[in-house]
Amino acid sequence: MSISTPLESLQDALEKGSRAEIEDIVEKLHPSEIADSLEALPKKQRDNLWQQDSLDQKAVLPYVSDGVSGELMLNMPPTELASAVQSMATDDAVDVLQNLPDDIVEQVLPAMDRHHYSRLRQVLFYPENSAGGLMNTDLLTVRTEMTLKQVLRYLRRFDKLPEKTDVLMVVDNNNLYRGMLLITDLLTSKPNLTVEQVMFTEIEAIEAQMSAHDVALLFEQRDLLSAPVVDEQGILVGRITVDDVVDVIRAEADHHLMGRAGLDEDDDMFAPVLATTRNRALWLGVNLATAFLAAYVIGLFEATLEKMVALAVLMPIVASMGGIAGSQTLTIVIRGMAVGQITHTNTPFLLRKELIVSLLNGVIWALVVAVITLLWFGSLKLGLIIGAALIINLFCAALSGVLIPFLLQRLSIDPALASSVTLTTITDVVGFGTLLGLATILLNI
Amino acid sequence: MSISTPLESLQDALEKGSRAEIEDIVEKLHPSEIADSLEALPKKQRDNLWQQDSLDQKAVLPYVSDGVSGELMLNMPPTELASAVQSMATDDAVDVLQNLPDDIVEQVLPAMDRHHYSRLRQVLFYPENSAGGLMNTDLLTVRTEMTLKQVLRYLRRFDKLPEKTDVLMVVDNNNLYRGMLLITDLLTSKPNLTVEQVMFTEIEAIEAQMSAHDVALLFEQRDLLSAPVVDEQGILVGRITVDDVVDVIRAEADHHLMGRAGLDEDDDMFAPVLATTRNRALWLGVNLATAFLAAYVIGLFEATLEKMVALAVLMPIVASMGGIAGSQTLTIVIRGMAVGQITHTNTPFLLRKELIVSLLNGVIWALVVAVITLLWFGSLKLGLIIGAALIINLFCAALSGVLIPFLLQRLSIDPALASSVTLTTITDVVGFGTLLGLATILLNI
Repeated sequence: MSISTPLESLQDALEKGSRAEIEDIVEKLHPSEIADSLEALPKKQRDNLWQQDSLDQKAVLPYVSDGVSGELMLNMPPTELASAVQSMATDDAVDVLQNLPDDIVEQVLPAMDRHHYSRLRQVLFYPENSAGGLMNTDLLTVRTEMTLKQVLRYLRRFDKLPEKTDVLMVVDNNNLYRGMLLITDLLTSKPNLTVEQVMFTEIEAIEAQMSAHDVALLFEQRDLLSAPVVDEQGILVGRITVDDVVDVIRAEADHHLMGRAGLDEDDDMFAPVLATTRNRALWLGVNLATAFLAAYVIGLFEATLEKMVALAVLMPIVASMGGIAGSQTLTIVIRGMAVGQITHTNTPFLLRKELIVSLLNGVIWALVVAVITLLWFGSLKLGLIIGAALIINLFCAALSGVLIPFLLQRLSIDPALASSVTLTTITDVVGFGTLLGLATILLNI
Repeated sequence: MSISTPLESLQDALEKGSRAEIEDIVEKLHPSEIADSLEALPKKQRDNLWQQDSLDQKAVLPYVSDGVSGELMLNMPPTELASAVQSMATDDAVDVLQNLPDDIVEQVLPAMDRHHYSRLRQVLFYPENSAGGLMNTDLLTVRTEMTLKQVLRYLRRFDKLPEKTDVLMVVDNNNLYRGMLLITDLLTSKPNLTVEQVMFTEIEAIEAQMSAHDVALLFEQRDLLSAPVVDEQGILVGRITVDDVVDVIRAEADHHLMGRAGLDEDDDMFAPVLATTRNRALWLGVNLATAFLAAYVIGLFEATLEKMVALAVLMPIVASMGGIAGSQTLTIVIRGMAVGQITHTNTPFLLRKELIVSLLNGVIWALVVAVITLLWFGSLKLGLIIGAALIINLFCAALSGVLIPFLLQRLSIDPALASSVTLTTITDVVGFGTLLGLATILLNI
């Protein structure tokens, strides 16, 4: 069972332009596979595939990533969009709507029927990255005082239970959340027991305002499949299922990975050249500014460089080693913060440890660099200077690696985006400055 | 509901050393929260917490990350370990065993009872990173010809169904996988229907040899909660539940993020200083070698640098812009490969696009750099040289960003680990080489 084969055969068929073959493949694919294929196609072929008669746009849309689905939906008439949105589960529908420009949402919402509209409004009320924004409102509730027999009879009235129902939510007469009844317990417990006797109450309800990040941590920690969501009064308003949490985890991972390179995790790999150029240019500009700052520092020592050009040969070594060591510390700290393992009590310990590690590694590699410099340029003094600069820069790198994420967080700047560039600026400036500064002082003695 | 509060109060209690307070907090925490706390504690406090009487080691162990749990288990006697492992679900037990040195596993396995031993052996037979290694063997199976009424009666015999049972696996008389029966369908369908009439067959069984990475992609694509695992003959051998898949997704994300900095995703944030120093030293050594390579290239042009020291001031700009632009391309490609969206048909298109984007951004920023250089050093020639070097380096960076991951993959080297350092080596060498090379040729004219 190979994942890439259907995608490749689809691409080949689109390349060849054979309609029959395309229809044939599309019919065999799961909507999620079609969504993946759409994302992996250049613009022209993507539009071509999207317009295939055999492709069920409503079924595919919830699976398409935000960047790409936004583009596809812009070309759909509002009434068609409204009927597509109506046929989705609330959480999917909300995802799709949150991804559209406001003026289009205002055209789509009135085209929907009342029932769907009111259900959606409840979820749209909460921010996208909160428990409320993640939740589904199609939940089955039972009362504490019902017997299991009554519950079983109640469930038989449905043709089909909502997808991914592993528990029934238990509420009291005021719709306050009380606990969860596992469907499997319903099957194995005595039918004359009451819901209250069988339900479990270990899982606290999630407040609708909780951030999606904290929701994901909670699901991961407790190995949850679904969890209840309540409003400030404790009234049950929805449930979150693990598949939506998986999407949050994936999105956060992408954010960390892509943010480091100044990329947006929703960026479309096959966006038009000009859009991509513009998106990337900003980041290059920021980095150019920091590079010029480093160049300015070097420029302060032009006279020293003229006297000893070997410094120009060696100076990138000090800067780059600082960057590497600092990014190791930085990565540890950012990850620890993301999983909630870094607190006010263990930060001093971590800082101390990182500083000691940086000193040890600084001394080891300073010796190596000093010896190589001595052999290469025949100057012990130069070897000692570069060694000292390396130790100082690695120390500053460790210090910055721990402190930068905290500082950025306090300034409400996303550490995943800005930490790396801030760190490199420091290690470059300190690296060049220390080496050339030490040389200026010591070579004249 | 704040996630960090229990951890912080626990740390404070450990700091103060007040036994009663610690016991008190430990009793209130979920095993997963205790596991998180253990990971977030320095070694001494960690051992202290681990030895608390109120801490249920068996319950906590499956939640602790590999790096830390290995250390904790090494201090447990084999018989205690065996009884701890016996009390876990198969997938957790296997995780724990795979994380122990072989000689300890050989002491633990014989200390277990026959029943657990044979169930574990089945899973241990498969590689850790395969569907077989992920699966759980505690599954409930029913036969196609049973009626739902019979199934319900069969289930009533159990006190409790296995955790996270959302489906029953359907097999024929030879134990060949046939389909899945949703527990919810069992509740809503007519009891006189047969399993065959109600089961769904859209989900293909996963072969035990499938990689954990492909399993995770499949779960994500199809929004699965659980899936059947079969051996080569199609015989049902286990099931995979989504909570284990979430762990795979998290581990892969960590691998990508930490691998970039040459870190192992299982590394313990609070490992002893010497262990951490050693782990990081290797990566620094690799990067030092590449830094010396760049220095060697600069050294080739010492004569040119002596004539024009401004080149030394400006050369880090060209190298660093190449590194930044290249890492943008690289990140896109590595992520695309990880989610299976990069194929042989769209790679040429992607390469072309990245090259065009790099040329456009190259020209834009070359102009900016050239103008600043002209203003700073008053030399148009130098401005043009650095601009040309920048365009060339950005082009090489895009080319490398697309090709390096493919090349490494073909050489069976993990792109998540080696791509970044390979790219920087190229952008440094090309950046320094082009600027100084062009200057050597053109400044003499």
